[in-house]
Amino acid sequence: MASAFDPEKARVPPALQLPKPPVTKASHADPSSRFIFKIALCQLSVTADKERNIAHARKAIEDAAGKGAQLVVLPEIWNSPYSNDSFPVYAEDIDAGGDASPSTAMLSEAAHRLQITIIGGSIPERCGDRLYNTCCVFGKDGKLRAKHRKIHLFDIDIPGKITFVESKTLTAGENPTIVDTDVGRIGIGICYDIRFQELAMVYAARGAHLLCYPGAFNMTTGPLHWELLQRARAADNQLYVATCSPARDTGAGYTAWGHSTLVGPFGEVLATTEHEETIIIAEIDYSLIELRRQFIPDKLANYVEWVHAVQAQRVIIIVRGAKKNFDQTTAIAQKEMHEYQHQENKLGVQ
Amino acid sequence: MASAFDPEKARVPPALQLPKPPVTKASHADPSSRFIFKIALCQLSVTADKERNIAHARKAIEDAAGKGAQLVVLPEIWNSPYSNDSFPVYAEDIDAGGDASPSTAMLSEAAHRLQITIIGGSIPERCGDRLYNTCCVFGKDGKLRAKHRKIHLFDIDIPGKITFVESKTLTAGENPTIVDTDVGRIGIGICYDIRFQELAMVYAARGAHLLCYPGAFNMTTGPLHWELLQRARAADNQLYVATCSPARDTGAGYTAWGHSTLVGPFGEVLATTEHEETIIIAEIDYSLIELRRQFIPDKLANYVEWVHAVQAQRVIIIVRGAKKNFDQTTAIAQKEMHEYQHQENKLGVQ
Repeated sequence: MASAFDPEKARVPPALQLPKPPVTKASHADPSSRFIFKIALCQLSVTADKERNIAHARKAIEDAAGKGAQLVVLPEIWNSPYSNDSFPVYAEDIDAGGDASPSTAMLSEAAHRLQITIIGGSIPERCGDRLYNTCCVFGKDGKLRAKHRKIHLFDIDIPGKITFVESKTLTAGENPTIVDTDVGRIGIGICYDIRFQELAMVYAARGAHLLCYPGAFNMTTGPLHWELLQRARAADNQLYVATCSPARDTGAGYTAWGHSTLVGPFGEVLATTEHEETIIIAEIDYSLIELRRQFIPDKLANYVEWVHAVQAQRVIIIVRGAKKNFDQTTAIAQKEMHEYQHQENKLGVQ
Repeated sequence: MASAFDPEKARVPPALQLPKPPVTKASHADPSSRFIFKIALCQLSVTADKERNIAHARKAIEDAAGKGAQLVVLPEIWNSPYSNDSFPVYAEDIDAGGDASPSTAMLSEAAHRLQITIIGGSIPERCGDRLYNTCCVFGKDGKLRAKHRKIHLFDIDIPGKITFVESKTLTAGENPTIVDTDVGRIGIGICYDIRFQELAMVYAARGAHLLCYPGAFNMTTGPLHWELLQRARAADNQLYVATCSPARDTGAGYTAWGHSTLVGPFGEVLATTEHEETIIIAEIDYSLIELRRQFIPDKLANYVEWVHAVQAQRVIIIVRGAKKNFDQTTAIAQKEMHEYQHQENKLGVQ
């Protein structure tokens, strides 16, 4: 044992193997290998009538699929008005499913029937006595592939402009969500999550092709930051970013900015819209990711090494602000380091 | 000893204390506490005549100080043409100083005489048999306060658009550079460094008020990314970002994009210009940083916890792509972890 021991290797534990993305690595130089598909961003009007909202979303998904979309994205909170008063009333028990969650039952049925992947925007979720702002991802088999609970709650106070405190009613999610689908590896965030570059970095390091952020920015932060943050996440991580907002309803308690957008891996806006209801259909070609990273190669190298450094220390990077989870995550990382160090000590490394 | 031992505390070593910024914490609510000053961005024309370049920069610094600037920023490579052929010819031995470095001697003299802080853009630096792309920061006492060697070299290849390989002649710097000055805590990057969000995050976590990036983007990446990256760094880190480019010279081998810019902590462009030679004078008010972070409070909390998580593991986050430095940094982090673990073991923690 001792003769085979290489202290340098022991000091740097092997990086965790990144899982292989489900989409074959597309080469821009080889057109036959390229994987090009259509995405639909459904910028839906949302009313106080939940049944209408569900039927309306179903019709939009059908329209999008009819136009060739293999991936359909819905807005944040598409089955309910966006308000702390509404969340408890419109919330559904997603885990129970069926009649307890008519919104996700519709998404599942539509995904299966139309043979598409759906990033189901978000709906208020009830789980025990807690409420979450939750995005469900359905595969073309109609099965729930991932469930993302908004990590960074929208607690904002710009005096005279916009004040909203989601944490009055909602609980923050605890986990990043990255999911393999028939249309690539997708990292999910909801609205305010897009402000946290760490989350996007973790997704990029794990091999995401596309980040999807259902989100309802407002009339203050929308013009200030909505496009900027999407383009920044895309350019910094050299991948696709898609956002989907509700259509603007100036009569609603919360006025959404709209402007659902698809951004390419150079940070370029590929498709966008104003604030009215519409369905954006646009093409995604993952071979462009490879091409952009060839142009500016250090970026990719940096990410790979960044995540390796993180993995080497078994640190789970904190992607959220909640103190409780910070402590939990730190404790987990410490425990893992301790176990690693214990093995190292047994090997006699000094 | 044993009775005083708290295993939870032992498992999470105390976060390193962040140094106190030199500028008194400015409160927007209390105007008397606010610290407002003028910054000058000198978008200089650069020629093949080094003596002319130095005299020209001196005059611009004097003009800027005459207009009330307390902080003057120069462009990337302001004493030399931007080319791999020129770097060895124009390079100066900054550490030797005096006649061996007339460019930095001028900066030092001007800073002292005019009682201002100078972020001296960058010049080619010779150190032994190596060349670096180096930014010197001088305090109003004329002393060299910091020296930043460009970490991320500009090795880019966009076929038919722009190809440049700095690493043909230059060596990459190894360290982030954050410096306390009379006008705040400033993080330094040079041009391509701005693409690496990790570097800006480290500076923000260490309490920077302002990031300064002397940089010469080009006619391809300039329109694509120059403003986007500045606004992203500012908005994501909620601090000021200043950039300074050479003026455009379409007759030069490398055509700079220009567009020197000051961005505020909401990601808003406060002052900018086109590509001709000019001096931008603009006001900076650090109390706006506090205000922006009050508006969107999770961001700051997140940074503090992010850096604490990093510190808890004694991980030095990798801010560059070079493999060699990755290994070095990992080894340092491993060593520190090992020492920490050793002490922990002595305390009997399991």
